[in-house]
Amino acid sequence: MRVDGRRNDQLRNVKITRNYTKYAEGSVLIEVGDTKVICTASIEDKVPPFLKGTGEGWITSEYNMLPRSTQTRKPRDISKLKIDGRTMEIQRLIGRALRSVVDLKAIGEKTIWIDCDVIQADGGTRTSSITGAFVALVDAVNKLHKQSPFDVYPIRNFVSAVSVGIVKDIKILDLCYAEDSMAKVDMNIVMTDEGEFIEVQGTGEESPFSRKDLDELLALGEKGIKHMTQIQKDVLKTDCLWIGTGKR
Amino acid sequence: MRVDGRRNDQLRNVKITRNYTKYAEGSVLIEVGDTKVICTASIEDKVPPFLKGTGEGWITSEYNMLPRSTQTRKPRDISKLKIDGRTMEIQRLIGRALRSVVDLKAIGEKTIWIDCDVIQADGGTRTSSITGAFVALVDAVNKLHKQSPFDVYPIRNFVSAVSVGIVKDIKILDLCYAEDSMAKVDMNIVMTDEGEFIEVQGTGEESPFSRKDLDELLALGEKGIKHMTQIQKDVLKTDCLWIGTGKR
Amino acid sequence: MRVDGRRNDQLRNVKITRNYTKYAEGSVLIEVGDTKVICTASIEDKVPPFLKGTGEGWITSEYNMLPRSTQTRKPRDISKLKIDGRTMEIQRLIGRALRSVVDLKAIGEKTIWIDCDVIQADGGTRTSSITGAFVALVDAVNKLHKQSPFDVYPIRNFVSAVSVGIVKDIKILDLCYAEDSMAKVDMNIVMTDEGEFIEVQGTGEESPFSRKDLDELLALGEKGIKHMTQIQKDVLKTDCLWIGTGKR
Amino acid sequence: MRVDGRRNDQLRNVKITRNYTKYAEGSVLIEVGDTKVICTASIEDKVPPFLKGTGEGWITSEYNMLPRSTQTRKPRDISKLKIDGRTMEIQRLIGRALRSVVDLKAIGEKTIWIDCDVIQADGGTRTSSITGAFVALVDAVNKLHKQSPFDVYPIRNFVSAVSVGIVKDIKILDLCYAEDSMAKVDMNIVMTDEGEFIEVQGTGEESPFSRKDLDELLALGEKGIKHMTQIQKDVLKTDCLWIGTGKR
Amino acid sequence: MRVDGRRNDQLRNVKITRNYTKYAEGSVLIEVGDTKVICTASIEDKVPPFLKGTGEGWITSEYNMLPRSTQTRKPRDISKLKIDGRTMEIQRLIGRALRSVVDLKAIGEKTIWIDCDVIQADGGTRTSSITGAFVALVDAVNKLHKQSPFDVYPIRNFVSAVSVGIVKDIKILDLCYAEDSMAKVDMNIVMTDEGEFIEVQGTGEESPFSRKDLDELLALGEKGIKHMTQIQKDVLKTDCLWIGTGKR
Amino acid sequence: MRVDGRRNDQLRNVKITRNYTKYAEGSVLIEVGDTKVICTASIEDKVPPFLKGTGEGWITSEYNMLPRSTQTRKPRDISKLKIDGRTMEIQRLIGRALRSVVDLKAIGEKTIWIDCDVIQADGGTRTSSITGAFVALVDAVNKLHKQSPFDVYPIRNFVSAVSVGIVKDIKILDLCYAEDSMAKVDMNIVMTDEGEFIEVQGTGEESPFSRKDLDELLALGEKGIKHMTQIQKDVLKTDCLWIGTGKR
Repeated sequence: MRVDGRRNDQLRNVKITRNYTKYAEGSVLIEVGDTKVICTASIEDKVPPFLKGTGEGWITSEYNMLPRSTQTRKPRDISKLKIDGRTMEIQRLIGRALRSVVDLKAIGEKTIWIDCDVIQADGGTRTSSITGAFVALVDAVNKLHKQSPFDVYPIRNFVSAVSVGIVKDIKILDLCYAEDSMAKVDMNIVMTDEGEFIEVQGTGEESPFSRKDLDELLALGEKGIKHMTQIQKDVLKTDCLWIGTGKR
Repeated sequence: MRVDGRRNDQLRNVKITRNYTKYAEGSVLIEVGDTKVICTASIEDKVPPFLKGTGEGWITSEYNMLPRSTQTRKPRDISKLKIDGRTMEIQRLIGRALRSVVDLKAIGEKTIWIDCDVIQADGGTRTSSITGAFVALVDAVNKLHKQSPFDVYPIRNFVSAVSVGIVKDIKILDLCYAEDSMAKVDMNIVMTDEGEFIEVQGTGEESPFSRKDLDELLALGEKGIKHMTQIQKDVLKTDCLWIGTGKR
Repeated sequence: MRVDGRRNDQLRNVKITRNYTKYAEGSVLIEVGDTKVICTASIEDKVPPFLKGTGEGWITSEYNMLPRSTQTRKPRDISKLKIDGRTMEIQRLIGRALRSVVDLKAIGEKTIWIDCDVIQADGGTRTSSITGAFVALVDAVNKLHKQSPFDVYPIRNFVSAVSVGIVKDIKILDLCYAEDSMAKVDMNIVMTDEGEFIEVQGTGEESPFSRKDLDELLALGEKGIKHMTQIQKDVLKTDCLWIGTGKR
Repeated sequence: MRVDGRRNDQLRNVKITRNYTKYAEGSVLIEVGDTKVICTASIEDKVPPFLKGTGEGWITSEYNMLPRSTQTRKPRDISKLKIDGRTMEIQRLIGRALRSVVDLKAIGEKTIWIDCDVIQADGGTRTSSITGAFVALVDAVNKLHKQSPFDVYPIRNFVSAVSVGIVKDIKILDLCYAEDSMAKVDMNIVMTDEGEFIEVQGTGEESPFSRKDLDELLALGEKGIKHMTQIQKDVLKTDCLWIGTGKR
Repeated sequence: MRVDGRRNDQLRNVKITRNYTKYAEGSVLIEVGDTKVICTASIEDKVPPFLKGTGEGWITSEYNMLPRSTQTRKPRDISKLKIDGRTMEIQRLIGRALRSVVDLKAIGEKTIWIDCDVIQADGGTRTSSITGAFVALVDAVNKLHKQSPFDVYPIRNFVSAVSVGIVKDIKILDLCYAEDSMAKVDMNIVMTDEGEFIEVQGTGEESPFSRKDLDELLALGEKGIKHMTQIQKDVLKTDCLWIGTGKR
Repeated sequence: MRVDGRRNDQLRNVKITRNYTKYAEGSVLIEVGDTKVICTASIEDKVPPFLKGTGEGWITSEYNMLPRSTQTRKPRDISKLKIDGRTMEIQRLIGRALRSVVDLKAIGEKTIWIDCDVIQADGGTRTSSITGAFVALVDAVNKLHKQSPFDVYPIRNFVSAVSVGIVKDIKILDLCYAEDSMAKVDMNIVMTDEGEFIEVQGTGEESPFSRKDLDELLALGEKGIKHMTQIQKDVLKTDCLWIGTGKR
């Protein structure tokens, strides 16, 4: 029996609110249980130096936690003049995940900035960020598409993410903080709506895990992703109809 | 006629939501028109070095804007390794404003961290931060008071803040961003519920102003503060009954 | 009776030495009692990115205290990799004050850097910096004007600054450090020679102040500013004759 | 056929030189093909603040590339005042990998610093770092053990790492740089000598991958790890006999 | 004939003003021609960590140029978050020079901070800093000595510094900026009043120099040092009588 | 008798390995006794801003010690966000030394980056860096020369460096760490193959030294340089034949 009474393969309640703030091209509040993240997608009409003149666009991400999104107050990065390693890892993961389903040539020389700011952290902030940021990205891309249609619609697939882990020898989906802090093995899975993997990151710092464990965790993750993808589709409604139409 | 149809002496709609997030000792979302700020108060059981051993407490504040709380994306401080000057000014103002109504000796050797994170910025973020942070502070102090009553209840007065300014030669209260960007004179006023001033900051960078202008702006500010204080009282209900009881 | 025997409405001795160092376009040592600040104005033939191509100039200011300008040694900013908040506030104030009396379009695409370096601090360093920096600015602008006359002389007004405060319930002008550290209310006033306000910053961190207090402090400040402006005129002699001639 | 003529399941030549430098408690040069990394283990008689008084030790890692270990010169972190995200990710991975096989309680309140400095980078620097750092760690732990035997020998298992990936639809083991830069899928696998996983990190940024792909990559990785573990055993000879004896 | 009409072996006018500012334990303005440096010595009742508990004191130095001490404005270190290399070199040199003539054991566990702030730079700022800082150091040490006499008076020797160089094949003493910028060889010499060397730093970046050149430069430097030492003695008068009395 | 049995005027064994790593245009491992430094020369097709458009090239150097090149682990610069002063001093010295023998006009608008990374430090790392870096520089310049011959071959002279010092009143050449830490006087000498000085840096922090001491140290240094130059010639063989041919 899990701390919040869920089945082992059950996600927490997921709520995605679009157009959460008014300035960003895409702006989403994603709530996964008590985890709450504001994800915005901002479009800038230039690219980083390494892409200048290539005709290609870029997607980059920044992740941050409000100081009191956590149980004890976490000092701001700027107070130490350093981004902490965990933050760096997460924002790189979010960026890779979104770029993997987008045709950057189709975007043209634009940068899409994805900002994920955690309002309240109760486990799974990185996976929630990916899931929510994808919806914000779709809204931002559609805004461009409506202004001036892309020749090739740039988003090829849905992408979402879930966590799985082993707590007291039981494999569970979508760990809340209480579970996460007891987990021996912890895995984050990013997948497309077609059941393919974008990223698999499993860590057994507390104790190594077997191939059989890994297989069961992957299966649990695939199940969770299917559910998460459906939630994205439900909230995007007809605004996701272009996704995949530009595949080449 | 103002851009949003308000009277010159009229505040925007103000909505204060208490217990907005679950970990902080005090946590408030304040909305003043389209300006939205999360204000949390966090209690830490130690004080900065200069107060160690004095028996006195401290209140300090940090202010930050989410990158896309503004019309164009504002890079995070950490990306430039510098807090910008405006941010520094604002967080110092918030700290001073709150300390001015609190008996730091009564608090004892604790630090109360006030974090004001702007979710959406439409003018008046610094004054909204003060008004909202005060409510979060009351909740945090009451939490301590209920656990173990203070000999002297530390909060002596309500404190709130409003902006006033001169736009096209007309004095107006509570400027939204569109008004703020046209203002020749811009003033922030922080006052207690007893009609006394904590802080007056008026700037005529675009054009100097006369003593008569100043007097009219102060009068307008006093009016706004009265309204703002009432809103704080309404939302705090019986939880504000201790305020002022510990005055010495 | 004040610590140094002055009347409540009396400035300390003010001495302004022009051409204090030899390289800067304008260079002033201002001494206000024991407070000593070197103010230089340096002209650079380019503007910050946000003004490029606009034809407008810019004035910006940096303020710093020598480590042993104060009673106990103050570590240099660079040793902490951070400008402290007070420094940031002051340098922003100096910049705003000077820009408010200058026609930046008339200057053309140049930046005037104002550096205020405190050699000895005995209260009132920020107001002394503004008063001294104005004289350095006039010298620098005149140097340009003599080389190649401006169509429109850019300086519209004199600007100077004084501090006022309440110490032991008495309102006094131009607080020295001993007074400043006992003050319950502390106010900095920046005004033009025409008696108009550029900036009013009053803080009652130690105790709130009434509207009547504020009015008396403003009156005291206006008196001090008149005196300070006269001192600037005396030291600039015929070099201030152009001031205001270019008003439009 | 691979760029260097290897079979798909073949490691490059691996050479591990122990006692490479003279001061560190453990010091190894690992060469995997043209990739060369100096790995040192340094023992410090204190722990980070979060472990003080717990009786537990800590293992932490830093990774860095010499500026000209790469094809074009990579500026040093200090010149940008920032550790780049990739470096941060790698050093966190190395630390987790080594901690996972060490009984930190058995170590006592000591920190073991693992420094991995890349002399020449030809792909697989992070996996080579883990493999080499493990040998340096054993040497450092044995030095302690010989001075004063541990009650419980702290190293429970061998740990090593390999990369696998998909290049032109072919799964290959131990990618050199030329292969890595063409890979669609890239995976790093960290395992014990008992065939259990410590960390699995697979990324399909360029293109998603199927469950079948994942399974084949894992199998290839397991094969590589077996070989890598044997190389560690060969170079450690009788110095690895204690490993695992302290398991509880 | 030199640019300012001096003989090749002639110092510029040197003026040392003691008690230049009022807070520092020692405070000197040294003027060497148009080069002006404020040198202060501040006493702190603690030592850096590496000396804690040893009973020994420390002398450390910081050097800085005001932004407009130079012909074109030099941005402040803090604006780049980096101390420039030249500054670092100079402040280390000043610290070493002063420590070399002081018995740090005799000082006890105190730190003497030497701050050299250049008001106007016309060549020779590092040597002027050493010469001026020595006088400030004597004043600070005497202040301690008068409060509570040292068992062993800590200053063993006078120390001063001069520059020499080769300009158009002529060896000259005490280069001003115009000479320095034409010099092929540039040397700084730090010596005691007993004619012994503390530091010799000669650089022929523009062109190598022979042993004969070196010998002539050293002779010129020794001559300059004798003069400089006399100037220090003249300004210190009877306050230098203790120097050397504590030698052991 | 020296700690390692050498004569007072004897260098340690010196071994220079060219082409030590495969990417850099010049790459050398220099071993002087137990001191080991990797020196690379990297060519970049642009110059710093102050040289743009002048047709001149630049040589710059960075020096760093691996954390465990020393007896106790030295934290990386990036962990403190500061380059330490000693490092700064050394890298500036290396850059000056190499520039002094190179015709930067002949190089054209290129930057040659010299990286000296200390693998093991047993005294004399700065002098070894210069000696080794010179060889790497020759290899890099020759690579350019072979691709497209310079009109004027840019390297005018050999340059190498040695340390000398006074330990227990005896003057010795090429101090190892054990000697260096006991030395009262410490001097670094950089010279050309023609017996001219590039840089002389002597420090008597522990105790001043006489002119006679200085003369003897210089003689010892000259002797060491002759030997060092011969070692460079031996390792460069016919690849040094162009050196000096372009002198003008």
